Amino acid sequence: MSEEFATALRQTAELMNRELGEFLPETDSPEQMLHSAMRYATLAGGKRLRAFLVIQSADLFNVSRDYSVRVAAALEIMHTYSLVHDDLPCMDDDDLRRGIPTVHKKFDETIAVLAGDALQALSFEILADQKTHPSGSVRAELVSKLAQAAGGHGMVGGQTMDIYTEQSDLAVSTITRLQQMKTGALITFACEAGAILGHAAPAKRMALRAYAHDLGLAFQITDDILDVEGDSDQMGKATRKDVDADKATFVSLLGLEKAKIHADMLSQQAVNHLSAFNTNADLLRDAAVFTVKRNK
Amino acid sequence: MSEEFATALRQTAELMNRELGEFLPETDSPEQMLHSAMRYATLAGGKRLRAFLVIQSADLFNVSRDYSVRVAAALEIMHTYSLVHDDLPCMDDDDLRRGIPTVHKKFDETIAVLAGDALQALSFEILADQKTHPSGSVRAELVSKLAQAAGGHGMVGGQTMDIYTEQSDLAVSTITRLQQMKTGALITFACEAGAILGHAAPAKRMALRAYAHDLGLAFQITDDILDVEGDSDQMGKATRKDVDADKATFVSLLGLEKAKIHADMLSQQAVNHLSAFNTNADLLRDAAVFTVKRNK
Repeated sequence: MSEEFATALRQTAELMNRELGEFLPETDSPEQMLHSAMRYATLAGGKRLRAFLVIQSADLFNVSRDYSVRVAAALEIMHTYSLVHDDLPCMDDDDLRRGIPTVHKKFDETIAVLAGDALQALSFEILADQKTHPSGSVRAELVSKLAQAAGGHGMVGGQTMDIYTEQSDLAVSTITRLQQMKTGALITFACEAGAILGHAAPAKRMALRAYAHDLGLAFQITDDILDVEGDSDQMGKATRKDVDADKATFVSLLGLEKAKIHADMLSQQAVNHLSAFNTNADLLRDAAVFTVKRNK
Repeated sequence: MSEEFATALRQTAELMNRELGEFLPETDSPEQMLHSAMRYATLAGGKRLRAFLVIQSADLFNVSRDYSVRVAAALEIMHTYSLVHDDLPCMDDDDLRRGIPTVHKKFDETIAVLAGDALQALSFEILADQKTHPSGSVRAELVSKLAQAAGGHGMVGGQTMDIYTEQSDLAVSTITRLQQMKTGALITFACEAGAILGHAAPAKRMALRAYAHDLGLAFQITDDILDVEGDSDQMGKATRKDVDADKATFVSLLGLEKAKIHADMLSQQAVNHLSAFNTNADLLRDAAVFTVKRNK
């Protein structure tokens, strides 16, 4: 991982924590607990890789950071809502997230459902706000693409597959589709958003989509590898959950070595998709490498 | 209730059921259960009063039905998601809705959370789609207003207050604020959406907001009255729930007679707000009367 990339990713995370704090004010109204939970979930940290991808993709087209940072915040908020709901007792039933108690453990289940619901609405509210881009068409397109990525044919559809598909039915092709919906769709949106904000030519937009597609899959395969090989203290969440649940993953289907090779190939392929961009895209190239080399 | 209004409301309900069916296709993919649940919840009927308000408000400004019906559908879908989540065991724990089992009873709790999540995303997806209005600014404004109405300072905030505020703390002023957030915000959006679609002058937009505000409150007070006086078979849901739960409502705070007087006054006030409109607004005037005269 390049020094420059590590610095840029850390700076993005710091920037996002400040920006997200602005979008999530503390209140002293009777619904205060809801807002505390929204804040707790969103400001708990995380790599902020999605935010990084939005900002770096937008930078390729010289989009003002005033705009791209807002889209990055909206995406992190959408991602956060999905984590809060995925952790619920009726979903993955997780007690720990990013090293601290999950929202339903810290507050309760009711607040976790409501905080997730309100975070989803807030994400769209930020995108649609005039401050996000002067063009109404651009704002509406961002909403449209994120809604598709997050909805029943995207993230929520993928989570449904993940929970309800019989494990024995899972082939590599099925799990690839599942993961493209569950985690890939939001990552693809991250890069496409930069192109939308920058009125990019179709070919460049497609290149960024293709890059994000491969990066997203490499990211997920690496998650599966880390579930087997990772250190739970370092990762801030339980590991070997999938193994213990006898769950089909890229590792269980391909084996550890082939999974690593597959992730590396996808990472390299992601980099290749950026050939139309000059050195301005180097941080995105680094991100594709980081995705498979990270240890948490 | 005027014959004309009864016909118009019934026609709106029939129209919406057809339109909503188009937005909610059945699938045979592995995530099929999610889509079935979304369809089940959305097509279960209901008065479609919110849809009616969107369409009638938009008609005042000669907005094409091609646009207003889509906004009406988006709003009904948002409303449906809120019902699905409100019925969850960790919320109001209801078994029956519109005369049939609630989503978590018919399917399960996991699917109910996911279907609600996907319905929320779908609502914004419909609004942001180019087919909803040629102007990107109009589409973005619709998203922005609906997100505010549905989020942590609107509907979800109101639901939080409803669940967590100590019943003994509830004064009429508190319950009015709670209901304006929980149910009023979406009703206000319904009427404001018509004004947004029609590029209405600010005074007319404000008049419609004021109308919707009073109608929404009258609607809620009538709900509280029906909880005491209504027939559960006719209403398709359990009655006397609030009484049995010793819950503060407009009826428990004001008494039955004063609550009825208050609802009637608000209904009349709503009608008065429409004085700037000619007979084209008669169906909206009828809606304000219907709101307090209905028996379900």
